[in-house]
Amino acid sequence: MQIAILLYNEFTALDAVGPYEVLSGLPDTTVVFAAEHAGPVMAHTGMLSLVAEAAIADLPHPDIVLVPGGPGRATAAQMQGGPVRGWLAAIDQHTSWTTSVCTGSLILGAAGLLAGRRATSHWLALDRLADFGAEPVSERVVMDGKYITGAGVSAGIDMALELAGRIAGRANAEAIQLMLEYDPRPPYSAGSPQTAPRDMVARMRHGSKYPRPNPAAV
Amino acid sequence: MQIAILLYNEFTALDAVGPYEVLSGLPDTTVVFAAEHAGPVMAHTGMLSLVAEAAIADLPHPDIVLVPGGPGRATAAQMQGGPVRGWLAAIDQHTSWTTSVCTGSLILGAAGLLAGRRATSHWLALDRLADFGAEPVSERVVMDGKYITGAGVSAGIDMALELAGRIAGRANAEAIQLMLEYDPRPPYSAGSPQTAPRDMVARMRHGSKYPRPNPAAV
Repeated sequence: MQIAILLYNEFTALDAVGPYEVLSGLPDTTVVFAAEHAGPVMAHTGMLSLVAEAAIADLPHPDIVLVPGGPGRATAAQMQGGPVRGWLAAIDQHTSWTTSVCTGSLILGAAGLLAGRRATSHWLALDRLADFGAEPVSERVVMDGKYITGAGVSAGIDMALELAGRIAGRANAEAIQLMLEYDPRPPYSAGSPQTAPRDMVARMRHGSKYPRPNPAAV
Repeated sequence: MQIAILLYNEFTALDAVGPYEVLSGLPDTTVVFAAEHAGPVMAHTGMLSLVAEAAIADLPHPDIVLVPGGPGRATAAQMQGGPVRGWLAAIDQHTSWTTSVCTGSLILGAAGLLAGRRATSHWLALDRLADFGAEPVSERVVMDGKYITGAGVSAGIDMALELAGRIAGRANAEAIQLMLEYDPRPPYSAGSPQTAPRDMVARMRHGSKYPRPNPAAV
């Protein structure tokens, strides 16, 4: 089984690496990081590059594709017509699963793959799915046929475990979870707009930079 | 603030990228991936390379260091005398925080940094901390002075959020958690040896390969 994880300039690294760490543990599976051109691809922080081992043109028939998200300017560049959009539309004809994490769902949407489907995205971008004829669903992992979308960034781990279970059965998915010691204990309860401080959610919805540059001001 | 994340051959990628995604969101912070030699470093799966932007020799005074884990053969190579061990011992003289994820704590231990301290590691490696005079503690995140150790792989996200709160205050750590939508919902409850199926835990303790290569046999 070949799993292609798309990389593009200013993607969010954890969107890709969380699912990679889960899915690479599946039996008989090869995960290939792929970008328009093979070589290092810089994440949105400017502080980390992952190496795309393949060019997308060299992967015409992956069994699974995963599209990570990124900041608005980064996803917008992939949503315009171009090699990535064309590749996604073409390979989706043959995939067993077409998946995304965070704002990667907007890229799937722009490629025409989510029309009429239920899907999720980062909470700040969720409403935009409607622009592509998708039905925005505020859940952590949304499955609609072979299309699986995960919410923001860290949701890719949960999405990938769901997918692992579908592919290889519950025991294999649990074994992966145990090896990754995925027994999460966030020290705070601010992980969703429903549980985070209301003023923080409001500030982010209005585009305030986070975190506040001066901790003393918080 | 400069945060150095160590890379070495066959490290576990999520151990490094989880904390990176959290800590790179801190104000006035630069995260630098560093290895014995600058350039791409292959993770333990053989399917993903991260780029070390710096050689460790070029980072004599990071404020924070983070050491990821890896399979036994990978960590063993770093625990022998050599440039990495020497670098860790030297920079620890000046760090504000010295941290690890998963079996990275064994590397800190081999560098002589955990003697007499409480520490954790991947559940399969926890007992080995005693070899270095550390007190093994079966918790997800263990703090002892400036030394913070996280349990296996995914625990690095929780560890980094704890650290972010210590560095920049609760509101900044919560803002990072919200941007990463870290509201985890594992689809299974197998994330720790206390909650996973007992026979699965026993098999792993006895070194069985996971997941079982043939899902039908599970």
